[in-house]
Amino acid sequence: MQYKAVKLVKRPKIKITPDLFEVVTLETPQIEDGQILLKQTHMSLDPAMKGWMMEDRNSYIPPVELGEVMRSSGVAEVVESKNDGFAVGDRVQGMIGWTEYAVSTGQGLNKLPPDISAEAVLCVLSLPGLTAYQGLMEIAKPKAGETLVVSGAAGSVGSMVGQIAKAEGLRVIGTAGTDEKCRWLEDELGFDKAINYKSGDLAREISDATPDGVDIYFENTGGAVQHITFNRMNVHGRIIVCGMIADYNTDKPSPGPNWINMIRRRLTMTGFAMPDHWDNVPKMSGKLLAYYKAGKLKYRAHTLNGLESAIDGINLLFTGGNKGKLMVEL
Amino acid sequence: MQYKAVKLVKRPKIKITPDLFEVVTLETPQIEDGQILLKQTHMSLDPAMKGWMMEDRNSYIPPVELGEVMRSSGVAEVVESKNDGFAVGDRVQGMIGWTEYAVSTGQGLNKLPPDISAEAVLCVLSLPGLTAYQGLMEIAKPKAGETLVVSGAAGSVGSMVGQIAKAEGLRVIGTAGTDEKCRWLEDELGFDKAINYKSGDLAREISDATPDGVDIYFENTGGAVQHITFNRMNVHGRIIVCGMIADYNTDKPSPGPNWINMIRRRLTMTGFAMPDHWDNVPKMSGKLLAYYKAGKLKYRAHTLNGLESAIDGINLLFTGGNKGKLMVEL
Repeated sequence: MQYKAVKLVKRPKIKITPDLFEVVTLETPQIEDGQILLKQTHMSLDPAMKGWMMEDRNSYIPPVELGEVMRSSGVAEVVESKNDGFAVGDRVQGMIGWTEYAVSTGQGLNKLPPDISAEAVLCVLSLPGLTAYQGLMEIAKPKAGETLVVSGAAGSVGSMVGQIAKAEGLRVIGTAGTDEKCRWLEDELGFDKAINYKSGDLAREISDATPDGVDIYFENTGGAVQHITFNRMNVHGRIIVCGMIADYNTDKPSPGPNWINMIRRRLTMTGFAMPDHWDNVPKMSGKLLAYYKAGKLKYRAHTLNGLESAIDGINLLFTGGNKGKLMVEL
Repeated sequence: MQYKAVKLVKRPKIKITPDLFEVVTLETPQIEDGQILLKQTHMSLDPAMKGWMMEDRNSYIPPVELGEVMRSSGVAEVVESKNDGFAVGDRVQGMIGWTEYAVSTGQGLNKLPPDISAEAVLCVLSLPGLTAYQGLMEIAKPKAGETLVVSGAAGSVGSMVGQIAKAEGLRVIGTAGTDEKCRWLEDELGFDKAINYKSGDLAREISDATPDGVDIYFENTGGAVQHITFNRMNVHGRIIVCGMIADYNTDKPSPGPNWINMIRRRLTMTGFAMPDHWDNVPKMSGKLLAYYKAGKLKYRAHTLNGLESAIDGINLLFTGGNKGKLMVEL
């Protein structure tokens, strides 16, 4: 039987273009003892992929090598098994890649309970939820009553950050790029305030929404929100730098704020990436599942159809064109 | 008997000018039960004073009120005592202010051992040494073999940071503004490399001096050194933001680096100020005294003469005109 996979064959200069990829048709392999054959059903598209495609060997994980299947996490079904740990019909989550089928030894795969949808797995229990939990709860250590500003609030990470913060009793202000996203954040997710960073007087809107200043800034985007919020930080405020999506598609990264307020307000700023925190995943997955089952974590999936839709579709992440967590249904 | 003191009567806009101060002549007061009369012998001038003179109520300690004696730390001798804790002839260190005499209850004063000079007290055991120890040892937590870059390395804090780091087994690179300061850092203080930031190709010099990248950046100045060093930070590097002297005398603070490398290298940046850490002072004083007695902490005092010399002299800190820790001998 044949299946398709997408390989990375060129590195991006600035933008992700179709010529970076090659679609190949392969024969499904015979599995050996200890292996399983996976049929992927849902594949996650994440902003971090851009970094994985670049050459930078100082990044948090090695780049995808040219000629390799592009890296991604996904949900799959076990369709053949010569491994006692997995039965045909089991559902798993793991780094499966841009491919319809994959062979695995089971290492690094998490078996999924039957009562959670693939969309919920990729939105809540996968990279975005884990990233949100790690940054907010483990690094920023919020206290009830504090004020949080999160940029990219309607994004896959930002929407989880805001909802976890609400569950923990914080005042939550989010920024997003359309009025529709802002309404979703306020009406469905319970944000105290959502601000469209493209409209109106952004500085005044952020200032009005944070009368007691800002204790935690969770950064997903960069841009004007960063500079305005930085200057509203309270003494002993914490800044979590998780994403800078406004700068991923430019060769001229914009300057950051002057550091004087780092001293005056005694701020701590921490950049992080999940691969440093894999050990913490089992604990965090349990916490996220508990929030989810208590109805505290809602999500929107933006689902593309068919493997090849990823090639153009990934750019929705950098234009803000996606409405909810971007994924591909295979 | 009469003595002089200097009051702050206007707040600085950008620069510190003589019209901000008023010199007053006062009668030495009669002390009451529990009080002591101090005759100050050495008064410290520090960059932080600029912040204390400004209006910003969000700063780490309240500003000096207009009409108050200007704030400073110093070394004094007890010349009268109605307090059982202090005898005439005792030497003390504390926040005495820009004044020849002061009345105190003894609160906040540290009694000094007889075998340490006033210069050594102000250079090693006072604000600069404490600041260096807190930032480097308590926040950055260096490991032997790591590489440290310190800006403003010939300054009162920077020179202590570099020497403590050498004592702890780090590779130490400092930047300073004259070749003479650089020679002092290399020849007398044992820095592995000192770079004059005003000469040559600064980016290449920093790069050549840090072949294994930078693990800790201790920031005292801002400016070009900040941007170059930020981009040489290693994974899990720590940045300590202690001073931004290049920006204290301008109304247009220069931009900082883009935050993308905060994520890629998973950096932590911490701004701090000593008033948050007074509880830690007894422990730190002991550590500093031990380094000093072991000959690990050398210093240079740049001594002005007479109380009123502080009024113009404080600006040496912002032009880099001082050679060593700036102080006034009374």
